[in-house]
Amino acid sequence: MSAQLRVAMIGHGFMGAAHSVGWRQAPAAFDLPIHPRMSVIVGRDAEKTASAADRWGWAEHATDWRAVIERDDIDVVDIVTPGDTHSEIAIAALAAGKHVLCEKPLANSVAEAEAMADAARDAATRGIRAMVGFTYRRVPAVTLMRDMIASGSIGSIRQVHASYRQDWLADADAPMTWRLDKDRAGSGALGDIGAHAIDLTQFVTGLGVAEVSGVLETIVHERPLLGESSGLGGTAGTGRGRVTVDDLALFTGRLSSGALASFEATRFATGRKNALEIEVSGDAGALHWNLEDLNALQFDDESAEPGRRGFTRILVTEPEHPYLSGWWPAGHMLGYEHGFSHQVKDLVEAISAGSDPHPTFAEGLSVQRVLDAVERSSAAGSTWTTV
Amino acid sequence: MSAQLRVAMIGHGFMGAAHSVGWRQAPAAFDLPIHPRMSVIVGRDAEKTASAADRWGWAEHATDWRAVIERDDIDVVDIVTPGDTHSEIAIAALAAGKHVLCEKPLANSVAEAEAMADAARDAATRGIRAMVGFTYRRVPAVTLMRDMIASGSIGSIRQVHASYRQDWLADADAPMTWRLDKDRAGSGALGDIGAHAIDLTQFVTGLGVAEVSGVLETIVHERPLLGESSGLGGTAGTGRGRVTVDDLALFTGRLSSGALASFEATRFATGRKNALEIEVSGDAGALHWNLEDLNALQFDDESAEPGRRGFTRILVTEPEHPYLSGWWPAGHMLGYEHGFSHQVKDLVEAISAGSDPHPTFAEGLSVQRVLDAVERSSAAGSTWTTV
Amino acid sequence: MSAQLRVAMIGHGFMGAAHSVGWRQAPAAFDLPIHPRMSVIVGRDAEKTASAADRWGWAEHATDWRAVIERDDIDVVDIVTPGDTHSEIAIAALAAGKHVLCEKPLANSVAEAEAMADAARDAATRGIRAMVGFTYRRVPAVTLMRDMIASGSIGSIRQVHASYRQDWLADADAPMTWRLDKDRAGSGALGDIGAHAIDLTQFVTGLGVAEVSGVLETIVHERPLLGESSGLGGTAGTGRGRVTVDDLALFTGRLSSGALASFEATRFATGRKNALEIEVSGDAGALHWNLEDLNALQFDDESAEPGRRGFTRILVTEPEHPYLSGWWPAGHMLGYEHGFSHQVKDLVEAISAGSDPHPTFAEGLSVQRVLDAVERSSAAGSTWTTV
Amino acid sequence: MSAQLRVAMIGHGFMGAAHSVGWRQAPAAFDLPIHPRMSVIVGRDAEKTASAADRWGWAEHATDWRAVIERDDIDVVDIVTPGDTHSEIAIAALAAGKHVLCEKPLANSVAEAEAMADAARDAATRGIRAMVGFTYRRVPAVTLMRDMIASGSIGSIRQVHASYRQDWLADADAPMTWRLDKDRAGSGALGDIGAHAIDLTQFVTGLGVAEVSGVLETIVHERPLLGESSGLGGTAGTGRGRVTVDDLALFTGRLSSGALASFEATRFATGRKNALEIEVSGDAGALHWNLEDLNALQFDDESAEPGRRGFTRILVTEPEHPYLSGWWPAGHMLGYEHGFSHQVKDLVEAISAGSDPHPTFAEGLSVQRVLDAVERSSAAGSTWTTV
Repeated sequence: MSAQLRVAMIGHGFMGAAHSVGWRQAPAAFDLPIHPRMSVIVGRDAEKTASAADRWGWAEHATDWRAVIERDDIDVVDIVTPGDTHSEIAIAALAAGKHVLCEKPLANSVAEAEAMADAARDAATRGIRAMVGFTYRRVPAVTLMRDMIASGSIGSIRQVHASYRQDWLADADAPMTWRLDKDRAGSGALGDIGAHAIDLTQFVTGLGVAEVSGVLETIVHERPLLGESSGLGGTAGTGRGRVTVDDLALFTGRLSSGALASFEATRFATGRKNALEIEVSGDAGALHWNLEDLNALQFDDESAEPGRRGFTRILVTEPEHPYLSGWWPAGHMLGYEHGFSHQVKDLVEAISAGSDPHPTFAEGLSVQRVLDAVERSSAAGSTWTTV
Repeated sequence: MSAQLRVAMIGHGFMGAAHSVGWRQAPAAFDLPIHPRMSVIVGRDAEKTASAADRWGWAEHATDWRAVIERDDIDVVDIVTPGDTHSEIAIAALAAGKHVLCEKPLANSVAEAEAMADAARDAATRGIRAMVGFTYRRVPAVTLMRDMIASGSIGSIRQVHASYRQDWLADADAPMTWRLDKDRAGSGALGDIGAHAIDLTQFVTGLGVAEVSGVLETIVHERPLLGESSGLGGTAGTGRGRVTVDDLALFTGRLSSGALASFEATRFATGRKNALEIEVSGDAGALHWNLEDLNALQFDDESAEPGRRGFTRILVTEPEHPYLSGWWPAGHMLGYEHGFSHQVKDLVEAISAGSDPHPTFAEGLSVQRVLDAVERSSAAGSTWTTV
Repeated sequence: MSAQLRVAMIGHGFMGAAHSVGWRQAPAAFDLPIHPRMSVIVGRDAEKTASAADRWGWAEHATDWRAVIERDDIDVVDIVTPGDTHSEIAIAALAAGKHVLCEKPLANSVAEAEAMADAARDAATRGIRAMVGFTYRRVPAVTLMRDMIASGSIGSIRQVHASYRQDWLADADAPMTWRLDKDRAGSGALGDIGAHAIDLTQFVTGLGVAEVSGVLETIVHERPLLGESSGLGGTAGTGRGRVTVDDLALFTGRLSSGALASFEATRFATGRKNALEIEVSGDAGALHWNLEDLNALQFDDESAEPGRRGFTRILVTEPEHPYLSGWWPAGHMLGYEHGFSHQVKDLVEAISAGSDPHPTFAEGLSVQRVLDAVERSSAAGSTWTTV
Repeated sequence: MSAQLRVAMIGHGFMGAAHSVGWRQAPAAFDLPIHPRMSVIVGRDAEKTASAADRWGWAEHATDWRAVIERDDIDVVDIVTPGDTHSEIAIAALAAGKHVLCEKPLANSVAEAEAMADAARDAATRGIRAMVGFTYRRVPAVTLMRDMIASGSIGSIRQVHASYRQDWLADADAPMTWRLDKDRAGSGALGDIGAHAIDLTQFVTGLGVAEVSGVLETIVHERPLLGESSGLGGTAGTGRGRVTVDDLALFTGRLSSGALASFEATRFATGRKNALEIEVSGDAGALHWNLEDLNALQFDDESAEPGRRGFTRILVTEPEHPYLSGWWPAGHMLGYEHGFSHQVKDLVEAISAGSDPHPTFAEGLSVQRVLDAVERSSAAGSTWTTV
């Protein structure tokens, strides 16, 4: 390995922009042991890829990902394509001896995810690292939540709520996108955003989801076909298409400790723009976080004096807090994309240290298995289904 | 009927205090068509009942409820005893030609509740009125929520969340009370507080819960026996008792319109003191209310100009708002107990007008049926169960 | 003195309704050492007074306050008339040997207030008590704030903010009322609501306001004359009148400890219905309260572990909290009017104990002196003016 | 001018890091008409400057700012040094024909600021642009606030509150830094953070501050000398130093329209980390923003239906909102540093368009004049002082 980490990124959509911020910003914010270099960006459309390279600061651009992952001057492959391609690219890249960062969800099916986890386990024996991109773990307030639970701040966990609510499909005339097509997206709200709720739960509690009972629901069954895309959606074209994924997922999970957790993923919660929320209730306190108030962690400490208890809004922007050493003085808020810089930091440090970065592909697979169990439970009348 | 409504209240616990506030305050706040008179309070313990009479302003006290409900000088019987006695007293009072206000839950079983609803339906033909005490309907913010949904402010309902979270049992050493004994209480969190979440959902949406899938959980199975009671709990005595009710209920309901609703009732949500919350998401907006911010209603109006949308915190303390004519200038907050005055107002007006007050016993029964279906679904591995 | 406290209330406006709640509710909520009896309500308009008596539960009504305060069967005189009459009634009542509760502000001028404080001091030597009605002191969250500051929870006080913001005059077509007429009201926002901000500051900090620099401003100089009154305002009649009081008061005070406090009183803060707010910043923490979230006290504890600090939202509805023993289980919210019950409790207990209830007339006078100093400072170009 | 804008940045402290983010990120987020190039970073300490260059992505580093501003291959000079050097560097850079971006405050004295504004006016005639770095104007929620006020959303302005509250000096043992030394910093809380409150007020209202009455206060007069610096503060060394600036500034301003505005700047508001807040109350509504909830704008719309009014929390992360086109889908939060990218965007676009970017040096001077007037008013016993 060179003194630099030479990165190739496959894909150039919205997630490509976000990952590029991470590669660009992390070395400026943190003292990294190896300097990442934004070497090549790869996409099928040469012109769009060239434009993305220019804009986001990638030195080269290319259209053939297979050729790129074979190049000797590439150390890391960062995959930001839709989920149906993750498996093939990641396995090939690992086989080619490249470290891999793969955007979530790990894959569109458990079978693919299992193959990827196997490949990653095998690669690890050769010193090759693999990581899946659940960046919300790296919002400082979320990392702090995990740390506090691990150190006993809320005692023994009694119950968990995790939900991810958006409303960008609430308008029945919002057009079809690839995210509403089961063949491309694997699932709907469940896999796209519910996966975050599951990963966060497993991350902050340190517990697995062992069995689930749930229901998936499509609320709007038919939509105008897409004209021009923008953001997560776009404008309506002519003709109508069939929504083949879930709009709403409601499920209950039993954690490995026996505690119950309730989950929700929806794109129909009017007025909720990006409300990823998690609350963990223990016998000694509780913690709550909401992405729409990204920098704050709410902490109820039952060891506080009686009559002085309640939720404390901790602004997680202090020097003591995770990742904050790289940023600004107290109270200077961070945003969504900082998680991508923290992801790069943790990946680069793990590669340098020769240790496995988290979340591993095995962790990504465990989320995939929960998603799969929810689909099976829903199909079986919400009966409890082992993950 | 006399020009006064002479009231007998059976019971003298915490709910007796709250109902007494209603009887005492409503005539001062509102122009009632008939003046209620606090005639008799009835309890098994003569001394405690006498003391309650003196303190709360009841003219007389008595120990034999059967004798009281036969008195000619009683027009209304207000029942605030534990749920296992509701059925017998209410049916007898209706048979004796008295209007009945019965605290929720209507009964401890569907069979009892059915008998009560039958008795009420029969009594109505004789001009006798029956009402069940879901007072949270009468918090002005909740009534406004119902009115806004009915008038189309949020369009067609897509999904509902309703939860009631408390934490007074989070301490595993909190002692046993009658509320933890299935024989006395019927059920635990489900019937005690989950019933409110169900009633609110049916009230604000105007929809019934048609089928459910859910799970009931006892988190702490054994507790110290009660020494001396205070508030909802008390101090620990000697010996230990078995908790025979649920501590946590998580369930999903399908409403009569087909929309899904998620429900939770828990006494283990650390830091949540009395968080009865409901959010209704429609295709044109959403409404949210939380008892811990009792006077505020949150309204997302998707008909507002793009870029100007979000949740508006409406302080429901203005002259335009339900029940506010009786109270203070704008912004002068109301509390928990005002719902009891509003309940008296609505009951007295219905009696005067010769119409049925809401919630009727039939509405109380419908909640009971949902509770029962949740218990059956939980026992059957969370399969969907018809209400 | 009889075993009962026989009360006469002079006045029957909005504050009469609120005081009546206090007299009616306090004995039901608390074990009072003497039972207050709502004996007589007095007003100039016989018909309206009779109606108020009937509605609010006063045994008798009368039109001649002088005659009533001379009655042997009256122990307490409660004054809820406009401020220009407080002095005469209170001094006469004290001279007649009656305990006096006088609604705030104590008077419309310092001279009147001084005479009242002198009369109260003299009466106290004869065992006669006098109290001024700053009821916001008795909101449990505010009382807790005072207790916490006194016990050192926030250390040494560095600065204070106190403001009272309403918006009921923001509409330039809202009509004239007596509150906008300097002859009747004494002052505008300053005396009506700024007085509360001053009293709260002095109460919770235990410090006096020693000197002030400020400005008074009339924003809308002319308004329609009042047609019919309702709430704090009413509907417009014909003709226009001149506003002779301040709409907005902004001032800085130096406390007796040397710390600075900023104050605001306004009726033009659009969207703020009844936002009485106070924040006290110490060297070991801070406390914040806002009437629009009446049951919550926000507490920043700098002795908490670094990285765990922030404002804790204490829901002041627990058994440990001031006055809560009389009310409901944890989390059952109180409202505006509970302060009036607490006022009655404290007054009755002080009379029974033979001690001076707070706030004394001397404390009321101290507020009046601050108001006066603000007016003088404003007239003198905002120069610092000794209180 | 070349097709690129070649930038030299003078200074390498905390603000240098923030400005570097802007230069690095803006071209990736926005389609800029000219591409900025991070050419040279300049600092007195060669080693530290080299390290900053490496870390933040500047192509070269240098120690002699005078030499750098004379280079032909530099187009823009970005000044992020302490305020006492702004004037000399900016005037020299403008004279050398370079566009200048100068961090706020423009200077430490009105005289310096006037010279700078003169130089900028003169340079503008030669097509050279100058801009002062009040980046909070470019938080999307703040820009939206300005746009909404300009378009009449809240009607005619009646009053304004603007405050900037921090607590990093609340600990009396926090050490001296250059920010507490009047010779280096010019003033304390007033100039450092109060300047932001003044600029925001003038920006969002479009009104100037015409006269002021205020008081400056030093709360802790002596502190330990600085050992090692970190963030805004550092660890204590040996010996003690005298604080020569204000810790707290409280002042009232009269705007050019006649409306009153209240201002506060403090570093002693315990629990407030970075609470820059502004509320503007108009006769048709109000707007409120707080940096600690950076992405949200609170809007009270008095044209909404009665009974439906209140503050709406607009999450300013939608495609319709200012600057959002460059970033993420709805609800994906931005942070503090995004303002620096927006600043670069606006500066580059203005240079390209040949127009003056805002805030101009004249606008920076106007803030300086307000600061100066506050100091004079404070020295003169808070009398009203013309700006």
